Amino acid sequence: MTDFFKGIAPAQFEGLDSTNPMAFRHYNPDEVVMGKRLEDHLRFACAWWHSFAWPGGDPFGGQTFERPWFGDGMDLARLKADVAFEMFALLGVPYYCFHDADIRPEGADFQENTKNLEEMVDYLGQKMEAGGPKLLWGTANLFSHRRYMSGAATNPDPEVFAFAAATVKTCIDATHALGGENYVLWGGREGYETLLNTDLARERNQAGHFLQMVVEYKHKIGFEGTILIEPKPQEPTKHQYDYDVATVYGFLKDFGLEDEVKVNIEQGHAILAGHSFEHELAMAAALGIFGSIDMNRNDYQSGWDTDQFPNNVPEVAVAYYEVLKAGGFTTGGTNFDAKLRRQSLDPEDLIAAHIGAMDVCAAGLKAAAKMLEEGVLEKARVARYAGWDDDDVLDGMDLDDIATRVIEDNINPQPRSGQQERLENLVNRYLT
Amino acid sequence: MTDFFKGIAPAQFEGLDSTNPMAFRHYNPDEVVMGKRLEDHLRFACAWWHSFAWPGGDPFGGQTFERPWFGDGMDLARLKADVAFEMFALLGVPYYCFHDADIRPEGADFQENTKNLEEMVDYLGQKMEAGGPKLLWGTANLFSHRRYMSGAATNPDPEVFAFAAATVKTCIDATHALGGENYVLWGGREGYETLLNTDLARERNQAGHFLQMVVEYKHKIGFEGTILIEPKPQEPTKHQYDYDVATVYGFLKDFGLEDEVKVNIEQGHAILAGHSFEHELAMAAALGIFGSIDMNRNDYQSGWDTDQFPNNVPEVAVAYYEVLKAGGFTTGGTNFDAKLRRQSLDPEDLIAAHIGAMDVCAAGLKAAAKMLEEGVLEKARVARYAGWDDDDVLDGMDLDDIATRVIEDNINPQPRSGQQERLENLVNRYLT
Amino acid sequence: MTDFFKGIAPAQFEGLDSTNPMAFRHYNPDEVVMGKRLEDHLRFACAWWHSFAWPGGDPFGGQTFERPWFGDGMDLARLKADVAFEMFALLGVPYYCFHDADIRPEGADFQENTKNLEEMVDYLGQKMEAGGPKLLWGTANLFSHRRYMSGAATNPDPEVFAFAAATVKTCIDATHALGGENYVLWGGREGYETLLNTDLARERNQAGHFLQMVVEYKHKIGFEGTILIEPKPQEPTKHQYDYDVATVYGFLKDFGLEDEVKVNIEQGHAILAGHSFEHELAMAAALGIFGSIDMNRNDYQSGWDTDQFPNNVPEVAVAYYEVLKAGGFTTGGTNFDAKLRRQSLDPEDLIAAHIGAMDVCAAGLKAAAKMLEEGVLEKARVARYAGWDDDDVLDGMDLDDIATRVIEDNINPQPRSGQQERLENLVNRYLT
Amino acid sequence: MTDFFKGIAPAQFEGLDSTNPMAFRHYNPDEVVMGKRLEDHLRFACAWWHSFAWPGGDPFGGQTFERPWFGDGMDLARLKADVAFEMFALLGVPYYCFHDADIRPEGADFQENTKNLEEMVDYLGQKMEAGGPKLLWGTANLFSHRRYMSGAATNPDPEVFAFAAATVKTCIDATHALGGENYVLWGGREGYETLLNTDLARERNQAGHFLQMVVEYKHKIGFEGTILIEPKPQEPTKHQYDYDVATVYGFLKDFGLEDEVKVNIEQGHAILAGHSFEHELAMAAALGIFGSIDMNRNDYQSGWDTDQFPNNVPEVAVAYYEVLKAGGFTTGGTNFDAKLRRQSLDPEDLIAAHIGAMDVCAAGLKAAAKMLEEGVLEKARVARYAGWDDDDVLDGMDLDDIATRVIEDNINPQPRSGQQERLENLVNRYLT
Repeated sequence: MTDFFKGIAPAQFEGLDSTNPMAFRHYNPDEVVMGKRLEDHLRFACAWWHSFAWPGGDPFGGQTFERPWFGDGMDLARLKADVAFEMFALLGVPYYCFHDADIRPEGADFQENTKNLEEMVDYLGQKMEAGGPKLLWGTANLFSHRRYMSGAATNPDPEVFAFAAATVKTCIDATHALGGENYVLWGGREGYETLLNTDLARERNQAGHFLQMVVEYKHKIGFEGTILIEPKPQEPTKHQYDYDVATVYGFLKDFGLEDEVKVNIEQGHAILAGHSFEHELAMAAALGIFGSIDMNRNDYQSGWDTDQFPNNVPEVAVAYYEVLKAGGFTTGGTNFDAKLRRQSLDPEDLIAAHIGAMDVCAAGLKAAAKMLEEGVLEKARVARYAGWDDDDVLDGMDLDDIATRVIEDNINPQPRSGQQERLENLVNRYLT
Repeated sequence: MTDFFKGIAPAQFEGLDSTNPMAFRHYNPDEVVMGKRLEDHLRFACAWWHSFAWPGGDPFGGQTFERPWFGDGMDLARLKADVAFEMFALLGVPYYCFHDADIRPEGADFQENTKNLEEMVDYLGQKMEAGGPKLLWGTANLFSHRRYMSGAATNPDPEVFAFAAATVKTCIDATHALGGENYVLWGGREGYETLLNTDLARERNQAGHFLQMVVEYKHKIGFEGTILIEPKPQEPTKHQYDYDVATVYGFLKDFGLEDEVKVNIEQGHAILAGHSFEHELAMAAALGIFGSIDMNRNDYQSGWDTDQFPNNVPEVAVAYYEVLKAGGFTTGGTNFDAKLRRQSLDPEDLIAAHIGAMDVCAAGLKAAAKMLEEGVLEKARVARYAGWDDDDVLDGMDLDDIATRVIEDNINPQPRSGQQERLENLVNRYLT
Repeated sequence: MTDFFKGIAPAQFEGLDSTNPMAFRHYNPDEVVMGKRLEDHLRFACAWWHSFAWPGGDPFGGQTFERPWFGDGMDLARLKADVAFEMFALLGVPYYCFHDADIRPEGADFQENTKNLEEMVDYLGQKMEAGGPKLLWGTANLFSHRRYMSGAATNPDPEVFAFAAATVKTCIDATHALGGENYVLWGGREGYETLLNTDLARERNQAGHFLQMVVEYKHKIGFEGTILIEPKPQEPTKHQYDYDVATVYGFLKDFGLEDEVKVNIEQGHAILAGHSFEHELAMAAALGIFGSIDMNRNDYQSGWDTDQFPNNVPEVAVAYYEVLKAGGFTTGGTNFDAKLRRQSLDPEDLIAAHIGAMDVCAAGLKAAAKMLEEGVLEKARVARYAGWDDDDVLDGMDLDDIATRVIEDNINPQPRSGQQERLENLVNRYLT
Repeated sequence: MTDFFKGIAPAQFEGLDSTNPMAFRHYNPDEVVMGKRLEDHLRFACAWWHSFAWPGGDPFGGQTFERPWFGDGMDLARLKADVAFEMFALLGVPYYCFHDADIRPEGADFQENTKNLEEMVDYLGQKMEAGGPKLLWGTANLFSHRRYMSGAATNPDPEVFAFAAATVKTCIDATHALGGENYVLWGGREGYETLLNTDLARERNQAGHFLQMVVEYKHKIGFEGTILIEPKPQEPTKHQYDYDVATVYGFLKDFGLEDEVKVNIEQGHAILAGHSFEHELAMAAALGIFGSIDMNRNDYQSGWDTDQFPNNVPEVAVAYYEVLKAGGFTTGGTNFDAKLRRQSLDPEDLIAAHIGAMDVCAAGLKAAAKMLEEGVLEKARVARYAGWDDDDVLDGMDLDDIATRVIEDNINPQPRSGQQERLENLVNRYLT
């Protein structure tokens, strides 16, 4: 045991009356909801990068966190892993996620990167066998290093494309070796800063070819996890090709991958794209590409990714309502791609932030489940479209036929209330 | 009794277990919180315009509501008032608000407007005496008529200024006659569409002079209500002079009115100005100009005023927390400047929307009160600044003195955690 | 001749030195640029609705314009058409566009609407034969009438779907009869206000089926114009299904329509969706669905559609650069879906606004053409991707092969400058 | 001479026909406009930080620039200064600006910081005497170091307040020693991340007291430069106290500093606050606090500070129009607080970016000057308010008097066109 979290006990479920800030009030992993344990519904995962690799910098200031594992070298990487697994244990999360660059030191070249990665995969593997959490997904960091400044798959330089492709291979291998249930691609540099120097059609084709290779490789090595794309509209780029769920869908259709690839949806990214989180979830479900979620919010008054821990139960509840309507998670889960505020310096902050977030999610999912089970909202929704059930009159008709019918039947439709406020009140009945 | 709300019974408090969509689950007006009845804390008011005057149009479509009182003429105005008071009674709200144009038909000129207004004031006065709610505030509609298209107080044409001033006089008179507790000015056209045709300094001075006349008139007639400005950054104008609370404060200081005028803060307007609602409330309290609130939300993904009924208890709770910290309402209250969605056609929608909103507010205020009474959050806040209590060392020092002290004492401050996530968790303890 | 524009002479090209506010300084329709007359490049069209049907209202105020043709009845509709064609002639635009509801009075039912439409189509046809401009596109207004408040093609009520389908039939017929070169669908109500009452997957399918019927009908009657979808992300709805170009592309792919339907891109809608105008144009070109443009800007600080006439030549120039790179317009053109500010009451405002806009477009297109002809920007772009030309080494390789190659060749790519500022300077050389 | 800019010749004015990317086409410093040399109008300044201190990082990636002066130590600081002054000379700018942290290495404590600063001030002083540019303004970096993570003047810890105050003292001393014409305060951390841990009123008072000390110290040492506050609404904080010009004005009024302090307005910050740049300039002029400008734009589709070099002449022209209307710069100037895109790696990029920006400003100012000299726009503006000149009828009247007058004269004002489009066309006549 390291002493980073010294004095902090594993988080326990203590129920609604608890005032213990380090305990769960809502999240009892063994509570059964809709026939499934809460832990199996929520499938919580912690993200390595924000909690263990990010130094607390922002565009106007540098490092605020002082962590004993900061720096280079394999010893520090192992210390970082030790602390990470201690946090996973304190929280009782069943999963974690990582980028290659989170868990291994940066090497001088591809070979050294690969060697470092493989050593760390072995180290993590041992920890997992010793009872650590499972791997929800792995991914490659193709955006931080300066070689990727103009893109990875979409780089004007084929050498960067090759370096990125080789790196992804090693990361899929790592994910496969650790039994990961998904592999994620977030294209933080797959976009442009200015159209003036960009061949948009070419770059989009490069991205499509790259993704086809990823899918092909997955099958080649027998990796059975899901390939996930994580949409984001912009930041750091001015425009990112995987703008939102609907954009990714068109992209997948274009390259014949709509049955091979799903999406990992982040609340903050949805908001940056002008959507509510629940919209992106509902859209993904409608298009058959719902995969997993990053449950971290953005500040509504800030125009960049703030990656805050969730804290608004009503918002989280309507999100889980869409997840449950889509059948719940299969290989996906609830990842906290969330970072502490840079002023939250203490180890207690790190633990408490996750406990609060898990509790908010548990409260939200339970409210959503109850609403779905009681079925009042769904009944109202179905009733609104009931006219289509009774009416096969438009089947097989063309515009001519329909115009004739409108005239013959003197169709002059009268609007009916959409009852939005009543439905919002109904949702609140499950929340307050 | 009209038959508009036929079949809808007065809303009752039925408690948390009620599934009656037309009953309160949280709002028991007689419940005592922090030594005061809930009704006296919240001081709910209904707004006449959205509920009774707005036809359901938006920039791309016309009227959707079909109300028996739509049209011109005093009979219809009286019918509208009858229905309005029936709604106030069904909801049990203690207050209402109006613009002159909401309650009287538009006349051919100022004199006819005044005559119509005075007749309707008599009519409303009779209803109020018969047990109707009190008047939270009156206001003049200086934005809908085409004469105001280039501003009212800030119009390039002094005749419009005069017409507006005369109209405000009649509206203050009306408010005074009805015992109104405040008088509100929202400058929907006091701004500009383009700087190219605008003398910004002149228009700002016109606005200042206008407001000075309003204050002077209030004292002249012995109106003891509070004069309130309602900030909004834009829409319908490109820029509105009363942008936000801080802007209004500078304006009041400039014209010597900071002790005479306070602000009526709307959540939706705060958001359009790039602020959270609670920010605007806290800022107004800090500047000593907090007055009243319009409790209607905007959609976070829409860039215009959506004026929706509140439905997110955590957001409402942190807003009331600021209200309570500021000492609660004196002459102000909780006005719903909210409109039904234009698809919500039914009388039931109108009642249910208000019931849901009142319940959300009651739940939010009760959580806020409990949080304030238990004092854990305030204790944490005070502790953060404790260094200033112990340390009078900087008193009376200038930059030279301080620099000397920094050197002599070798001051090298170490940052301390801001604990944001822990405080957010703490707030959630009162909400879920 | 009506006397609405009395005293206003047809706009003439007078060259750069002209200070005549009613003359063109840049737009000489006969000037040959890149082998084509300016008129044939730009293909200007005026929109009927904003200039002749819109009364000047906004969400906070009513009618400001007082036009002799406002009101109901066929006589007024004909007067409106007379004035419209007079404006077209004064401006010398080669095209115009309309919704059914712009040109005909609203009838009591579908049959009356159709009869009114057909009569007006005859009337317009006569005017066109007498030398009036051609029809760039027709479209159906499926958003203003209250029957469409919950959608047209995506309405929960099949009767509304039928009414909309029958109406579109009549509008395609009208467009066909008048020799229109395109038919446009803007789905202003094809979206939702709240997910709570919406079956997103069903509504999207309804929209797809509707569009398939439109395409089928076009072929059935031998209409050879292009079917165009006009994307917009929101407003009036909270979410519109045709969010942006990439979203529309995915939708078209899903319903097998990507070779049948193109897009009409509006600058203002691009901005509301978080994109630059040139981005949407470049994306449409890359996806093979570029059709036509609505050349009207939004205010960058306003979150709703302001539909202003274009006035920034550098912005317009980079837009036309994308149009020219895409091969220029075929059936499409430059439509001004722009409205006067509601304070711009005079007939002179209407003419001057269009003259200024046409001039801005001409200046922009000429700069874009010169930049394209000189080829410096394209040369720089091509050079940036030159590595891909020389390098077939990645062809046919999978991730394994590439990883081996990276190791064997010790590929360690070095970033190269993207030269954004130098390219921006280069563009400015053509503009100032 | 260092060899960083080897091969790059000093930028020369070559006129409109030049295609030399490293020459000015518009900026001839000696050209006389409105009776003053262009150089004296524009008063260009380069900012040290973005060009010489920023490593090219963003929230998702690290350093991209590799500069020989990066690192710690006085030798590198002197090398950095050498290169900076070489760039100033190549560009021929008359001014530069710096933060303390840009020019000196970070020391272990306040004393070492001060010592480093003083040594570098001597070094810069020698360079300035040798013909280098003058100092437009100095400022203290009170936001990058972790000690300032919770604010400088507004920090909960008085030790941080003291450290900041002492640091500002040394920076005013440095600015004074180098003959700086202004001293700037940008409060990047003077705001909050969450209201939950913030005493807004107290922090605002701390900021007021701090600023009072700054003004007092300025007078104490005889520094005659202008004290400038640079407003920004947010980023890095969620809320910054100096939100925009109007907010700063209210703050200055509150602390009695409105005659002592002016504002330095940045286009990018204006946009983040929901304003156009010209709005903030016009507002500052109207309030009597216009001081200086940071001429760097934000991307309109990005919600964070992109600090790009200006490249849109029409936008720059309307900004300089407001500057000229306000009487032009006195101690202020045109500072480029602009950074290269992080992909612009080459020394040529740095020089070319500034050349292009200076040219855009020169073109804009010349257009603005011509428009002001010809006076057509001002004449139209004045005419719009002419009613006020002729009409002293409202002088000394109160609301009662005015109401009487409206009735007696039967005032019923008729709206007049605002002519926005015609004025926009007029502006374009000077631009295209």
